[in-house]
Amino acid sequence: MNKANTVPADLNRSLAHLADVVDQRRDAFKAGQADPKTSYTALLFSKGDDGILKKIGEEATEAVMAAKDARHANLAPEQQKLLVGEMADLWFHCLIALSQFGLRPEDVVGELERRLGTSGIEEKAARKANGND
Amino acid sequence: MNKANTVPADLNRSLAHLADVVDQRRDAFKAGQADPKTSYTALLFSKGDDGILKKIGEEATEAVMAAKDARHANLAPEQQKLLVGEMADLWFHCLIALSQFGLRPEDVVGELERRLGTSGIEEKAARKANGND
Amino acid sequence: MNKANTVPADLNRSLAHLADVVDQRRDAFKAGQADPKTSYTALLFSKGDDGILKKIGEEATEAVMAAKDARHANLAPEQQKLLVGEMADLWFHCLIALSQFGLRPEDVVGELERRLGTSGIEEKAARKANGND
Amino acid sequence: MNKANTVPADLNRSLAHLADVVDQRRDAFKAGQADPKTSYTALLFSKGDDGILKKIGEEATEAVMAAKDARHANLAPEQQKLLVGEMADLWFHCLIALSQFGLRPEDVVGELERRLGTSGIEEKAARKANGND
Repeated sequence: MNKANTVPADLNRSLAHLADVVDQRRDAFKAGQADPKTSYTALLFSKGDDGILKKIGEEATEAVMAAKDARHANLAPEQQKLLVGEMADLWFHCLIALSQFGLRPEDVVGELERRLGTSGIEEKAARKANGND
Repeated sequence: MNKANTVPADLNRSLAHLADVVDQRRDAFKAGQADPKTSYTALLFSKGDDGILKKIGEEATEAVMAAKDARHANLAPEQQKLLVGEMADLWFHCLIALSQFGLRPEDVVGELERRLGTSGIEEKAARKANGND
Repeated sequence: MNKANTVPADLNRSLAHLADVVDQRRDAFKAGQADPKTSYTALLFSKGDDGILKKIGEEATEAVMAAKDARHANLAPEQQKLLVGEMADLWFHCLIALSQFGLRPEDVVGELERRLGTSGIEEKAARKANGND
Repeated sequence: MNKANTVPADLNRSLAHLADVVDQRRDAFKAGQADPKTSYTALLFSKGDDGILKKIGEEATEAVMAAKDARHANLAPEQQKLLVGEMADLWFHCLIALSQFGLRPEDVVGELERRLGTSGIEEKAARKANGND
């Protein structure tokens, strides 16, 4: 029923893992150990702030277009897969941006938890009490 | 060193938890049990696809502006906090969009893992071998 | 055949006219003579840079969604009209942004002309010679 | 005083002219007479709807970033020039999108005029009467 509880622990850790990998590649690029010609992540870091940030605008637009296509296709599996792919692109470039600015996805998710009051005991209490926004 | 290993299990589960809460509110809205006047999440679902999707474009732009401000402020803590807040806005509206289209953040993170080859044993092997992109 | 030649002079002047009106309302707002509660233009100027700029991201996304809808409807007239409306929204907020930053649409169109080499005699010569990019 | 009245007639016609050039290149591409390898406009048309539309999201983001930089530089001339250049990029890709969907900038500007009531006599009357939004 509660999907979160059935997600393997490894999957739950994966966003932080992904950020680790991104940070490692960022550091490798800065140390001259990653080639923008062979690594897309290194290529992004080689472009600096604006080159990274404009991708967020581009990928956000692509995710929106994929969502429109998915709806027009009545959420057919192949369109849903494309939507997942575009959302993954958007989140990937968000991870790159966070790394570029010295931040972590944990910061973002922590802020989301704080807002929604879903972390730990408070969240469980809120659910029991039919918590609202 | 590996930050992912030091993240509490509860934090690791939080993205899925947040999606659970969003899905619950979506279902509550559809069942007429959540009021758009008092719940922002219900308000978003009441607007339908385009109302939800345009927020992704708006919040992506706000995240980019916050990043520009953060850089101009030499990543001062108060500006970094604003950037985290804007990125949280963007991700929150992505979670809303995923819920609207019957998808889960696990789908997105799973796709990211698949691409980067960072899940499980492969990822560890890749690290040991100084894996590249 | 050449649509530009058949456009009435008044229509041709309209982008500059529109910017004049926007600038007048900006100045009226700054002088305390335009009320954000009754004028949308005054409301935008009251929000400052970020409030104006984020609308560009939002309206760009809405224009893209309208274009997707138009295509899915085989460019049916009612959808085309909506697309024109969303593009008008985007351009309007661009005019607001230009005014906010002390610029004019003539600056932008002049830059476009310079790039494409379409102004004056050069453009006509290029057409005769079946000019390319 | 009224800048519109001092703009040369050729500049006023330029947006329509630019659209003529874009339409000509679109038609040349469709007729196999424009090479995406040598013409950027042909390259855009070769990418189809999504390739064209995602550029609107990307260029909107770049225009916003240039505006942020311009403000941080106190609207210094060199930054203003960059902002004009990014806004020109955005409008250019809007012209490409309009052409792709069989529309004209006159449609968009006409809609803007209709909304603001700035066309012809009505607009002049409105000005005299200290027209509001």
